[in-house]
Amino acid sequence: MSTFTSNRLRGITPYTPGEQPRTGIRIKLNTNENPYPPSVQTIRSLSPVPRPLEKYPDPNCSALRTAIAETYGLKTEQVFAGNGSDEVLAFAFMAFCDSIAAPDITYSFYPVWAKIYGIKYHTIPLNEDFTVPVKRFIATDKSVVLANPNAPTGIVLTAAEIELIVRTNPDKVVIIDEAYMDFDSGNNSAIPLIERYPNLLVVRTFSKSYSLAGLRVGYALGQEQLIRNLETVKNCVNSYTLGSLAQEGATAAIRDVGYFKRIIAKIIATRERTEHELYKLGFEVCPSAANFLFISHPEGHKFGAELTAYHASVLQSKLREAGVLVRYFDLPRIDNCLRVSIGAEDEMTRFTEILAALI
Amino acid sequence: MSTFTSNRLRGITPYTPGEQPRTGIRIKLNTNENPYPPSVQTIRSLSPVPRPLEKYPDPNCSALRTAIAETYGLKTEQVFAGNGSDEVLAFAFMAFCDSIAAPDITYSFYPVWAKIYGIKYHTIPLNEDFTVPVKRFIATDKSVVLANPNAPTGIVLTAAEIELIVRTNPDKVVIIDEAYMDFDSGNNSAIPLIERYPNLLVVRTFSKSYSLAGLRVGYALGQEQLIRNLETVKNCVNSYTLGSLAQEGATAAIRDVGYFKRIIAKIIATRERTEHELYKLGFEVCPSAANFLFISHPEGHKFGAELTAYHASVLQSKLREAGVLVRYFDLPRIDNCLRVSIGAEDEMTRFTEILAALI
Repeated sequence: MSTFTSNRLRGITPYTPGEQPRTGIRIKLNTNENPYPPSVQTIRSLSPVPRPLEKYPDPNCSALRTAIAETYGLKTEQVFAGNGSDEVLAFAFMAFCDSIAAPDITYSFYPVWAKIYGIKYHTIPLNEDFTVPVKRFIATDKSVVLANPNAPTGIVLTAAEIELIVRTNPDKVVIIDEAYMDFDSGNNSAIPLIERYPNLLVVRTFSKSYSLAGLRVGYALGQEQLIRNLETVKNCVNSYTLGSLAQEGATAAIRDVGYFKRIIAKIIATRERTEHELYKLGFEVCPSAANFLFISHPEGHKFGAELTAYHASVLQSKLREAGVLVRYFDLPRIDNCLRVSIGAEDEMTRFTEILAALI
Repeated sequence: MSTFTSNRLRGITPYTPGEQPRTGIRIKLNTNENPYPPSVQTIRSLSPVPRPLEKYPDPNCSALRTAIAETYGLKTEQVFAGNGSDEVLAFAFMAFCDSIAAPDITYSFYPVWAKIYGIKYHTIPLNEDFTVPVKRFIATDKSVVLANPNAPTGIVLTAAEIELIVRTNPDKVVIIDEAYMDFDSGNNSAIPLIERYPNLLVVRTFSKSYSLAGLRVGYALGQEQLIRNLETVKNCVNSYTLGSLAQEGATAAIRDVGYFKRIIAKIIATRERTEHELYKLGFEVCPSAANFLFISHPEGHKFGAELTAYHASVLQSKLREAGVLVRYFDLPRIDNCLRVSIGAEDEMTRFTEILAALI
């Protein structure tokens, strides 16, 4: 660490994003990207370049926020848009949180934001089966952040469970990170609760379900006073976080409902088929409401320094040699697990074939 | 302010960006945008859409950073790229600063970043003529941030003056915000000093000189350990701050040197002609090395609650009624000044005609 480091930065461990290799990988299942391209309407909105780029973008993202609001039956003033849901979440941590409770196994960026913004971070262990212990999130006297479906497990809480947590923490903001909720087949989103709970903030992204990871657009939904606070944070950090092309592309994407529904249905079908194939290979698979599967093989063990051929870290390396990238987290409780993004049908067929040959 | 506000956010006053009206304004001279479009090569790099947008962008911005590095004879590892220079500056404040010195009249985002990141902010008054009192920035025992050319004055310090400040604050990072330096006709950039001073960070933007305000790309140049710290901050906030299109467009823009030089020369020529016209109208004009002029009329006074017709705030309102937007800051010492961006030749002709008719 540099001698010029601020006190804030000393001793901090940053988040490690998934690899973005440009060569050598034929099947990329490590960062939960959508295997399908953005809709034709989305691409058309970007080409030819629709706005004079020498001008600043709309700092209020009005057209985009209105399109998002209409999608969910909300008002424009109940929508905040930002440079990916990571930025939106970072702003929410800054805006609302002095101390925050989160599961021990969840999106690993949460403790990093807490640390860099000086927020006390309290972890609550997941149950043995990786479900969230809902009762332990009642009346926490802290802000709460929950990924729902959770990452990297893919397990979803019901809207009733979320409501219990929101209702019993009325003085603190409860952030529900629904990055993957579009891949849930149920009705578990917290969005319908917004009108009743002023302390509920729902965060979403265009990166996964809308196939726009490359454009960097995320958003938050909540009552107007929460959204105003997010606007304040934005105007204390960077007034123009979303470029003109990002605003245009995301607006077109969320309005193209038909395409969106078709690719979501395909990904859910592929997930269910892949889950079945993995069971046949002897893997344990968390029940997933997301566009990834969290898997482990019961014969993956450590014997001292030795790992069996079924151990997640061994499988990750061998898959990589075969040109397949999956995500491995060398963290307590999940160090024998792999997170496998749902790719296109043929990619997942090839993935399970390669995996079958390795074990 | 919401009851759900974090301690950090209480009592904070955010930065106010310049207006981005979509209607009613014929000549927009309020946010220092470039009047000329991005180069043909830049637009071609974006259309058709050059990258699969369903994939995450390169989190390291390697191609863009290499193009920037080659432009200045630096190494890729000496370049950091971010979502506009505002984000880059915000990250630099977080990475390097516990206390920071800045002029009283300068970019009004600096005190906002200091406040939100808990950094002590020390102001040093500009001289009567709005020049920076260089000697007062010697051995400050604090980090230093200087816009050079300064905003909103447009006045530039020489490289020798900057070097004196950098050399005499060897234990603290000196941030030189060169957002407007490309419009300087001299050789005042601090970039050639980077190889000698490990505490020097130079920040620049594509928004002004490269006509890419709508794309949101800024960058920092410095020795590798400073750049590594900025990368650490980025990976504690948002791993993918720059989308694929922003990376592509900025890379194409900085490689198109010929177009860049042509539009810069035009803007400098227009600035000099406009300055001359404003002198003829009786205005005082700060000597500008930027793409704007900071002007005031000596007959702009307050008589109690009454303002003369020459007062900057009156002129701003009347210009607005005439469809011309300029920037006015209601701040101590500069409340009789207007900041006027340099538009295209015909826009500035029309501007001076309208202004002449008002006074």
